[in-house]
Amino acid sequence: MKEFADIVGAANVLTGEEDMAPHLRDWTGQWQGSARAVLLPGNTEEVAAVVKAADALDVPIIVQSGNTSVSGGSVPDEAGDGIVLSLKRMTRIRAIDPAARTATVDAGLVIEMLQDAVAEHGLDYPLMFGARGSAMIGGALATNAGGSNVLRYGNARDLCLGIEAVLPSGEIVHGLTGLRKDNTGYDLKNLLIGSEGTLGIITGAVLKLVPTPRVRSTAFLALPQVEGALDILNRLQDVSGGLVEAFEYMPGPMVEAIREHDPSLRAPLERTAECGILVELASTRPADAEEDETGEVALQRIMLSEIEALMEEGQIEDGFFATSEQQRRDLWRLREAVLESIVARGPFRVLDAALPLSGVPDFLRRAGDVAEAAGLQPLVVGHLGDGNIHYSLSARDGGSWDEGRADAATGELLDILADMKGSYSAEHGIGRVKTGTLAKRKDPAQLEAMRTIRQALDPGGRLGRGVLLS
Amino acid sequence: MKEFADIVGAANVLTGEEDMAPHLRDWTGQWQGSARAVLLPGNTEEVAAVVKAADALDVPIIVQSGNTSVSGGSVPDEAGDGIVLSLKRMTRIRAIDPAARTATVDAGLVIEMLQDAVAEHGLDYPLMFGARGSAMIGGALATNAGGSNVLRYGNARDLCLGIEAVLPSGEIVHGLTGLRKDNTGYDLKNLLIGSEGTLGIITGAVLKLVPTPRVRSTAFLALPQVEGALDILNRLQDVSGGLVEAFEYMPGPMVEAIREHDPSLRAPLERTAECGILVELASTRPADAEEDETGEVALQRIMLSEIEALMEEGQIEDGFFATSEQQRRDLWRLREAVLESIVARGPFRVLDAALPLSGVPDFLRRAGDVAEAAGLQPLVVGHLGDGNIHYSLSARDGGSWDEGRADAATGELLDILADMKGSYSAEHGIGRVKTGTLAKRKDPAQLEAMRTIRQALDPGGRLGRGVLLS
Repeated sequence: MKEFADIVGAANVLTGEEDMAPHLRDWTGQWQGSARAVLLPGNTEEVAAVVKAADALDVPIIVQSGNTSVSGGSVPDEAGDGIVLSLKRMTRIRAIDPAARTATVDAGLVIEMLQDAVAEHGLDYPLMFGARGSAMIGGALATNAGGSNVLRYGNARDLCLGIEAVLPSGEIVHGLTGLRKDNTGYDLKNLLIGSEGTLGIITGAVLKLVPTPRVRSTAFLALPQVEGALDILNRLQDVSGGLVEAFEYMPGPMVEAIREHDPSLRAPLERTAECGILVELASTRPADAEEDETGEVALQRIMLSEIEALMEEGQIEDGFFATSEQQRRDLWRLREAVLESIVARGPFRVLDAALPLSGVPDFLRRAGDVAEAAGLQPLVVGHLGDGNIHYSLSARDGGSWDEGRADAATGELLDILADMKGSYSAEHGIGRVKTGTLAKRKDPAQLEAMRTIRQALDPGGRLGRGVLLS
Repeated sequence: MKEFADIVGAANVLTGEEDMAPHLRDWTGQWQGSARAVLLPGNTEEVAAVVKAADALDVPIIVQSGNTSVSGGSVPDEAGDGIVLSLKRMTRIRAIDPAARTATVDAGLVIEMLQDAVAEHGLDYPLMFGARGSAMIGGALATNAGGSNVLRYGNARDLCLGIEAVLPSGEIVHGLTGLRKDNTGYDLKNLLIGSEGTLGIITGAVLKLVPTPRVRSTAFLALPQVEGALDILNRLQDVSGGLVEAFEYMPGPMVEAIREHDPSLRAPLERTAECGILVELASTRPADAEEDETGEVALQRIMLSEIEALMEEGQIEDGFFATSEQQRRDLWRLREAVLESIVARGPFRVLDAALPLSGVPDFLRRAGDVAEAAGLQPLVVGHLGDGNIHYSLSARDGGSWDEGRADAATGELLDILADMKGSYSAEHGIGRVKTGTLAKRKDPAQLEAMRTIRQALDPGGRLGRGVLLS
């Protein structure tokens, strides 16, 4: 380890069991690896020097930032011959340009830290998901993280204007340009984004920022069936001029499971909705934030008018409108309690599915049939505006759990997805969890091209061994 | 050619001089190549079979769709040993999904044909540039085309959800999924988009559509200097909730050159603006299209109010507001007459520059100094909201033109761009025109990675010989 200590400094080479422990396991407890050391480089040049040294010494590298992956891609395998390269000392905000609405940051910056820092400029980095208090920019880009605001602002990929990265060769890609347009050759930025640390180590990024909305309007809608949801989304987009930030699917059984787990959370509607939708609009328009003589906010009026029309048409059965920030928070608390509610029920399988938007109702019907036949309880939540459905299977109330039956049902769901041209990893990536699924189900031409590219850029296979392509 | 005739049919193999001619030269007249034949496959399977046959026979291929490139990437070189593969028979709209707001199309479909076809669903494919009446989807994607609406809707890359393509191996990438989220491995879609026909042949695509606006508000603004433009753009975005579709830079000398070329075009303002901006907002909100008692449209009122405030602050000197569709068209005719006005003046050099948004004023000042010192007339137009500046140099009125001096000045502009981390090809690509510039000026790590990827995917170098990387 002397070569590495010379680069990053002895204090930044962790080798003790206790020091290394948090870097060797993932938070889900599913993945526990080992390593010769955890290195904490302080800047991009040190990362490049580490990669070059590792190349010379034939040492494999796992890149790690916030270690919040749900797919095991941020921890090493069990061989113990490699190093973990942690970005957690690289936390600088290098620049904020309020006029251009961009921030240039180190890859080890925690997402929420960036959000706090740009808020004082009236700006936001609108990547919104549960782990944002510990997830870092580097990991968000390496896995192309999504979340609940993708519908409006795009995913991590869409919010990135440029990256700095270290290639497996140890060469530095200098791409922190902040350009909105640049057609000078292949799109290496997007190739590295989403490559899960296997084609290069993202060390910095220029990120798009958006103006903080002045006003939001949030509601929970009950639809007679999911079939009408896409039309409702389109109509809300059109009457608002594209202001829908979130359009989250929360069907009745999911809401019930949440309330069972945490009875302090209030159900938004008296009668459980067959198809519940949490919808939020947000606007920067001053006029949209104005109150009329009755105290009603203009943006809420726009949404309410359309929803009233939809109720008259029978497309919406009921609706609850948050009229205070507290009520809005309560609706989002319900949404954010989904994962722990599912976990609390015991063992489960979850599919991070994406469908073409029009295919969602058909998928839900077919998947429901599979769950029914397997005697399992489906618990479903989704970013409906993106066609992204998180589909969980757990034991029925009072029912038993059978691993084999759960695996068989999951396989059937994957077959349905394949049949419908869906994705089995909408936003969670492949990591270590889904390498087998990828190898089995990816379009052969694409799989072959992926292997060819990885082999060409990293002939020694030193970056992210066992991640993405095994 | 028998092998190829067996695949596409003898009638679809052009070998006569006259038949081939339009496929061997580009519309600018700068590039004239030769080929053994022009093949017109009718579907993706035929394209794949042609690529496999070409591989077996060691025949290079140039892909061509609308042949409207400004960079020479769509015509063959002069060796005459290869084939041109034209997509012009592949013109199907495979599907339109109005609810999901997507269209699935063949790569040989002309952009305007798609726009016409989706208009009846109240939708648009908002890629807006001069050549859209002959440019095809395949070429737009292969070159990641841009235009005047990128600010609002993104470029060809951003508007594409999935592609079908034939790799240099002849294998077909089946990626026509229409998914909004899909993190299953490397982003091959974005690698192929913008690769200018060198890594694969795009044969089909799923494209995003957007709702046709109900109302537009268009104005020509005179600013005392370009420095304030970005702030004005941000303020118009915020008061409208992000509705700015175009924010085009048209400084005084450019407007004068246009009117000199075509005196029938009216100047929008009495006094020529030092910094002119053509701005357009567009909205789907019914309320934005409503007229008040004076006949003023709500969207226009929103824009006008903010511009009045900016005039009081001295940030805007004057403004002309289109109050009829005819006036709006006249403003856009002025914008669209830019290229022919420059061409009409005689020889010129043009730089397709992109800068970080905040860097534009500094670039214009420095570039102006170069033009001044070289005794050349700069004529400038730009998509200011994207930091994209088309910077032309031509002879001064009554002045002489010197190729050497023009080249030297262009080189200085490229040096300034490099110094400012700008791009020398914001939207026009590399083609054959800029391979030398790319080889000289691209970040070495990126250039090396590009070469590695091309070599790995197309070891025989059969696709797009001499294009992008020479």
